[in-house]
Amino acid sequence: MKIIVIGLSGTLGKAVLAELSTRHEIVAVARRSGDVQADMRDIASLKSCFEKIGKADAIVCTAGSVHFGPWAEMTPEKFDIGLRDKLMGQVNTVLAGQAFLNDGGSLTLTSGILNEDPIQYGAVASLVNGALESFVRAAAIELPRGLRINSVSPTVVAESLDSFGPYFRGYKAAPAREVALAYSKSVEGKQTGQVYKVW
Amino acid sequence: MKIIVIGLSGTLGKAVLAELSTRHEIVAVARRSGDVQADMRDIASLKSCFEKIGKADAIVCTAGSVHFGPWAEMTPEKFDIGLRDKLMGQVNTVLAGQAFLNDGGSLTLTSGILNEDPIQYGAVASLVNGALESFVRAAAIELPRGLRINSVSPTVVAESLDSFGPYFRGYKAAPAREVALAYSKSVEGKQTGQVYKVW
Repeated sequence: MKIIVIGLSGTLGKAVLAELSTRHEIVAVARRSGDVQADMRDIASLKSCFEKIGKADAIVCTAGSVHFGPWAEMTPEKFDIGLRDKLMGQVNTVLAGQAFLNDGGSLTLTSGILNEDPIQYGAVASLVNGALESFVRAAAIELPRGLRINSVSPTVVAESLDSFGPYFRGYKAAPAREVALAYSKSVEGKQTGQVYKVW
Repeated sequence: MKIIVIGLSGTLGKAVLAELSTRHEIVAVARRSGDVQADMRDIASLKSCFEKIGKADAIVCTAGSVHFGPWAEMTPEKFDIGLRDKLMGQVNTVLAGQAFLNDGGSLTLTSGILNEDPIQYGAVASLVNGALESFVRAAAIELPRGLRINSVSPTVVAESLDSFGPYFRGYKAAPAREVALAYSKSVEGKQTGQVYKVW
């Protein structure tokens, strides 16, 4: 398969690359690195990126950031960072990417455990992850030509514990290579509308 | 109790008013009608509204619109209508309203069945409803002073079947007065972080 992976600079992206590149052709997309550049906050940038790459069999997105911080300092602007980036960045990837997928191709997004299991400081992440998982269920019944869509919902990744460990006390971490299996299941399986929880 | 109800012009708002006004003082807020006017898409407008009303024991929001339409015509701009209105309008209500609630007071938002049970044309509604329910779970562990937050998730309302029936074939409708009971449970009960499904 020819697989477009957006977000290869992160821990998850690298693990997905390691899992899928042994048996598939990977085209790496990132904001400033990768084989082709795109800013997923801008649907025109994504369209231009997909036009350069041409037809593919799968698009995987592991990119997306949100604001973490104290509840008392939350503002609409801090929510907006996550809405523009992790949420609409991935929605844009679906809206722009579907036309470039071969029949039966797949889209795999990244949500996360905070949808169901919230932490202090994580209200925006919870909101964005919940939005993505509901979007996946809805898009799965709308996508044409047998296109499929799923989301991977990881717990905190073991390789990120140095940065995020203090926020996730008591959460069992998953090694990135184990999370990468869920992306493989989405891309190489046949299911659609699913959320693959790795926790 | 003194209860602020945002969105009294809609079917649900009227039913909530009928349920709660028999035993509580209601202050009605709407964009152009009501006792006090506010545009919940603008947090400054909400703050000014809450300042006029003063301290309250509960805020209920039944307002919020999203774009419905064919998948092939979905654009980031059409998602943005729902993000600004039903989603951030209600998040703004929480961010601005919490300071005006008495200790132990409650916030009750409105999500909907499409989070879990999607229909054609409803991708934005699904996304927004999922975001709201995750936000409620997260905000419940962050809110200070014993403040509580829940969401009511109605199926299609019987009184709206003339407009929405064709989109919800096979869905069992709920009378608005039955949905209003869930708002009463949130306001007059003691639970927090819950989604009350009326379906």
